[in-house]
Amino acid sequence: MEERIASLVEKLRGKADCALVTDDINRRYLTGMKSSAGYVLVFPEETVLIIDSRYIEKARESVRHCRVEELTGGIYAAVKKELTAHGAKTAAVEARSLTVQRLHALEKALPGFSFLADDTLSGALYDLRTVKTPAELERIEAAQQLAEAALDNLLHKLHAGMTEREVALELDFYMRRHGAEDLSFETIALTGAHTSMPHGVPDDRRIAAGDFVLMDFGAVVDGYHSDMTRTVCVGEPTEEMREIYHIVRAAQDAALAAARPGITGDALDAAARDVIREAGYGEYFGHAVGHGVGLEIHEFPVASPKREQVLAPGHVVTVEPGIYLPGKFGVRIEDFVHITENGCENLTNIPNKLICL
Amino acid sequence: MEERIASLVEKLRGKADCALVTDDINRRYLTGMKSSAGYVLVFPEETVLIIDSRYIEKARESVRHCRVEELTGGIYAAVKKELTAHGAKTAAVEARSLTVQRLHALEKALPGFSFLADDTLSGALYDLRTVKTPAELERIEAAQQLAEAALDNLLHKLHAGMTEREVALELDFYMRRHGAEDLSFETIALTGAHTSMPHGVPDDRRIAAGDFVLMDFGAVVDGYHSDMTRTVCVGEPTEEMREIYHIVRAAQDAALAAARPGITGDALDAAARDVIREAGYGEYFGHAVGHGVGLEIHEFPVASPKREQVLAPGHVVTVEPGIYLPGKFGVRIEDFVHITENGCENLTNIPNKLICL
Repeated sequence: MEERIASLVEKLRGKADCALVTDDINRRYLTGMKSSAGYVLVFPEETVLIIDSRYIEKARESVRHCRVEELTGGIYAAVKKELTAHGAKTAAVEARSLTVQRLHALEKALPGFSFLADDTLSGALYDLRTVKTPAELERIEAAQQLAEAALDNLLHKLHAGMTEREVALELDFYMRRHGAEDLSFETIALTGAHTSMPHGVPDDRRIAAGDFVLMDFGAVVDGYHSDMTRTVCVGEPTEEMREIYHIVRAAQDAALAAARPGITGDALDAAARDVIREAGYGEYFGHAVGHGVGLEIHEFPVASPKREQVLAPGHVVTVEPGIYLPGKFGVRIEDFVHITENGCENLTNIPNKLICL
Repeated sequence: MEERIASLVEKLRGKADCALVTDDINRRYLTGMKSSAGYVLVFPEETVLIIDSRYIEKARESVRHCRVEELTGGIYAAVKKELTAHGAKTAAVEARSLTVQRLHALEKALPGFSFLADDTLSGALYDLRTVKTPAELERIEAAQQLAEAALDNLLHKLHAGMTEREVALELDFYMRRHGAEDLSFETIALTGAHTSMPHGVPDDRRIAAGDFVLMDFGAVVDGYHSDMTRTVCVGEPTEEMREIYHIVRAAQDAALAAARPGITGDALDAAARDVIREAGYGEYFGHAVGHGVGLEIHEFPVASPKREQVLAPGHVVTVEPGIYLPGKFGVRIEDFVHITENGCENLTNIPNKLICL
């Protein structure tokens, strides 16, 4: 935590006297503590966490590197007191998460101060968060291990007649029972023609023999997310199903082979997209190939057309091409990788070949 | 949906030519469809939903009262095209949820248009959402029934030696297995001295004989949330535990008796708070007495000191006083009510008396 804060102070130097952090995830990143409210004020001399009575006992116990102040009156008065005590005139705020209303309220309540509402603070925090430390990678790996164990458990039980909802619950309960703090997002479990909806919601549709079952899911461990998609077949797939799966898998393999420091997000996307386009299915792949994963399920870098962010060591990014044939079926295969000094390490340990049950 | 949209158009008349809705929950409120992306443009003549390929099939199928347009290029170009086609010059945006960055990007990308970023649109949407229709109340009641069934199931199993996490999972799995779309929030299940943390997180602490177990949880049905807290004793409570429970219950009863159209949020809060203060525990009740519940777990009205919003028929609000003695134990009891023409209907069917197992 202390290193993150030191880096942040460095990035703000000459631009603002302090940072005023209100975003839940950024607050967790800087304090190590999860809460649904609270302000973090980062000054060069010290960091102050202002938090209300619901969280104060926990904060005093666990957040050692900040001065913890209980919020008893209005938040703006508390912020003003700290700014004044530190002689700070300019506070950088999070343009990517602060609402328009909150900024207006701050400006109105604290007329003697100015708020830097460009991308300085959000950009600095996202840049820091994009590069994972070994401790963060450990948590991401632990989350992925839980998800893989859940899939392994499910594959022993998956059968025609199960509903999409039952499939999702089986995955979810396994992850939660084995220590997941939360699910990475609402598990997607789809079958048959439903698989053509990239973000469909599980319902009571039952798996029929010969159906694809598409599962996109992940676990959260100590705040850090995993993300994986597998499309398996219950029974015997048709020739067309095999062919589409093969194309998506080849697209994923191409992107996995291309993932290394120095490649741009759009080049990584193109590595997979070109394979699908050349096979004649370009119009059936509408989403991006990948996104960063960490304290949030969608972070930087983004691997999509037109995104030129360069991948660097410490980045974690999904590789998830898909082909979706409306009314027929869809296939998505998703791994996620950690960019290393020389290439990448696949954080997904389950092979991407077609599993037929 | 059509009525909501007509009311919204009415509220914007003379202030903006259209509404540009980007908030996930407000989008669901206006379209009836859940998604994690998409823009809704509300013009007096028609409503347009612009949504990407992940959701397009579902949107075309289910959102009949909007013109559904697939987002294929940039979102700003798509918005500009609609604004231009409708001759709209001013678009109201959601100040309470739109980020500072998004507003700056809109202003930069669409220089010929102006964006009304005061509280007009957010305020109008929240006002509409605060008053629940019978169809919305049905979903809230269905969500509460699931939560109560989960508690009933749990109480048959609760025993010394169970961990907080096991208690939370038992509640969660029951709700999900029986049809909850989601949990209202991460279930709080605390025992022993942990109960003094109003928003503590369940861990591996085991229930000991004589412990309070505090559970705050809810289910989501078709987007609508329920919310309930019960504090039960496993074994025999001490005299002090009984006394504190009795005070919190009396505070809740006082607020439940006061809940009716015309009362302000702060008066409802005071009805409970005064009982706790007079018993000498005012400093151990740090949070508000209640909040609205609907498509989000925290909505309007707010029942806390200084909130003067007047309760009206159709409002749904929690009544959840508590006393938290650090290092010892805490008690919170939470029901939620629907404000009727003459008083209120308690949506919580489980009595608030102390349950000892």
